[in-house]
Amino acid sequence: MRAAVMRGEKIVVDTIPDPVPGDGQVLVKTLACGICGSDLHALHHAAEMNALAEATGTPVFHMDLERDVVMGHEFCAEIVEFGPNCARTLKTGDRVCSLPVVLHPGGVGGIGYSNDFPGGYGELMLLSEALLLPVSDDLGSDVAALTEPMAVGIHAVAKANLLPTDVPLVVGCGPVGLSVIAALRLLDREPIIASDFSPKRRALAEQLGAHVVVDPKQRPAIEAWKEAAGAGTALIFECVGVPGLIQQLIFDSPAGGRIVVAGVCMEDDVIKPMAGISKQINLQFVLGYTPEEFTSALRALEEGKIAGAPLVTGKIGLDGVAAVFDDQGSPDEHAKIMVEPWR
Amino acid sequence: MRAAVMRGEKIVVDTIPDPVPGDGQVLVKTLACGICGSDLHALHHAAEMNALAEATGTPVFHMDLERDVVMGHEFCAEIVEFGPNCARTLKTGDRVCSLPVVLHPGGVGGIGYSNDFPGGYGELMLLSEALLLPVSDDLGSDVAALTEPMAVGIHAVAKANLLPTDVPLVVGCGPVGLSVIAALRLLDREPIIASDFSPKRRALAEQLGAHVVVDPKQRPAIEAWKEAAGAGTALIFECVGVPGLIQQLIFDSPAGGRIVVAGVCMEDDVIKPMAGISKQINLQFVLGYTPEEFTSALRALEEGKIAGAPLVTGKIGLDGVAAVFDDQGSPDEHAKIMVEPWR
Repeated sequence: MRAAVMRGEKIVVDTIPDPVPGDGQVLVKTLACGICGSDLHALHHAAEMNALAEATGTPVFHMDLERDVVMGHEFCAEIVEFGPNCARTLKTGDRVCSLPVVLHPGGVGGIGYSNDFPGGYGELMLLSEALLLPVSDDLGSDVAALTEPMAVGIHAVAKANLLPTDVPLVVGCGPVGLSVIAALRLLDREPIIASDFSPKRRALAEQLGAHVVVDPKQRPAIEAWKEAAGAGTALIFECVGVPGLIQQLIFDSPAGGRIVVAGVCMEDDVIKPMAGISKQINLQFVLGYTPEEFTSALRALEEGKIAGAPLVTGKIGLDGVAAVFDDQGSPDEHAKIMVEPWR
Repeated sequence: MRAAVMRGEKIVVDTIPDPVPGDGQVLVKTLACGICGSDLHALHHAAEMNALAEATGTPVFHMDLERDVVMGHEFCAEIVEFGPNCARTLKTGDRVCSLPVVLHPGGVGGIGYSNDFPGGYGELMLLSEALLLPVSDDLGSDVAALTEPMAVGIHAVAKANLLPTDVPLVVGCGPVGLSVIAALRLLDREPIIASDFSPKRRALAEQLGAHVVVDPKQRPAIEAWKEAAGAGTALIFECVGVPGLIQQLIFDSPAGGRIVVAGVCMEDDVIKPMAGISKQINLQFVLGYTPEEFTSALRALEEGKIAGAPLVTGKIGLDGVAAVFDDQGSPDEHAKIMVEPWR
């Protein structure tokens, strides 16, 4: 199959062997796969990611950097062929989503961040039949591929344990922030305050349902929050992931504020514990989602409760992947760029 | 009155004017006042503490460093004289504790960290009559002066929102860690695991009620925790307050662990957000206590539910204060050193 392969620290399009489904696995054709910020980071920092996965005891995502890796974990696909010992509840040609993991005799493999299970930047993937979620005919494959990033927001909001008094502030309206906004709307929260430097992303935040959208260059987000929140309590979603922002939000937050760290900062960061202490801040780090949250994200997209279509701001073939990585995803212009490997 | 005064960055014993009680205030004689680690820090870092109080919008504790400050906020005292407009429910000679704040026409003043309200390292203090808590005859003044540090532990445990499945690990058995252990015992938690490098402090941890006490030089605390906790969930109390420890505990904690940051680290600290993210760690910073928690600390000491006496490891007069500051409180040898200004 053809794939955009991470080889060394480069993305190259090449023909590599087709994957072969094992017991309980299905071979699928990738219809659409979103490019994730973590992938952009992984191209040059995969060794650090490996080291951290080891240090934190989460070795599901390990990449041997001497060998090819095909990234891509936000996908919609079509069933091509069933491996041995499948129940075949679905049939070839059906469109599906799946958690980006594969069950195999050795345990669980991470799709897109391992050598053995190619991700959606290739024409073909292996999925576990037991994890397949059928996609309804009315939902475009590109929007269905948003299931994974939307599950991230649903999970972040679930882990926040919202109180009735909470007024949320979403800092950063990239894919993570937008999915948090969408998840807050699923719960009918109002008002939702959001901020981003990019006009394009601010417009998307409004489309996804934020009630107050701020350009922090014009006005500090926390001021807009204070005006909108009144006597409400502070629940701040950090959805950027750059060093310094956690401490900035500790300074900005009212006493007793809760900060959900959903932005993925892979570098070291400096905090002033005494500032957190004096305000009795709560920091909840979050990652991923449960299988139930993943399923509910797909259903929310199918039912139109999350308006996913505007998030797909670009579509490319395999030949376009390297350029997107070179441009770091053009975050001011794009929310989600979809790779369509068969294009 | 005589007092051990913070003047410049030195502690000097001097005679300064007696404080004069205003409306609703009482003049009290300090019977015992504990030396707090924050005081040791304040001697050389008061300017930074001022700056941080300003940055976080908690200006109750502001010290003009050109003027004298009498520190000391963990005290038991005796009523000497009532100011104007007092209800006089108590009488002169009664022994009392109080939250270390004074209500005055301009707002709330912090006892021990302000220029206007001398703390317990002086012979006399002003307290607000409305905040006085009478001390029962059976309780020694030195143990009653532990009310404030014991309230710190009660508050930390309250903010932790203990789950039935939680097994607590207390890292550091200085006064903060010991008070957390005492507070956990008040809730009949078992097992409580605790760690400290100092043999003296480990012995105190056992006396206060920890079930498993570890020397981290011999064995990582988290290993002892894992053995004792079985299928329990991790609730880790950081009671040391040195840079690097929060990140170390993020690495040590099982996935989903909660870390209560009760140690007061006044320096910048480096964390790896990605490590917190990959384990979905919760960090709850805590400080101080509510008036109810303060009262319940005094009652627990009175009722013998907290065995406070072993915590008082030294007693000195005003002339001994400077040496304690020079030795940084001799943390390996001492839990709580009491100043008895009239000694």
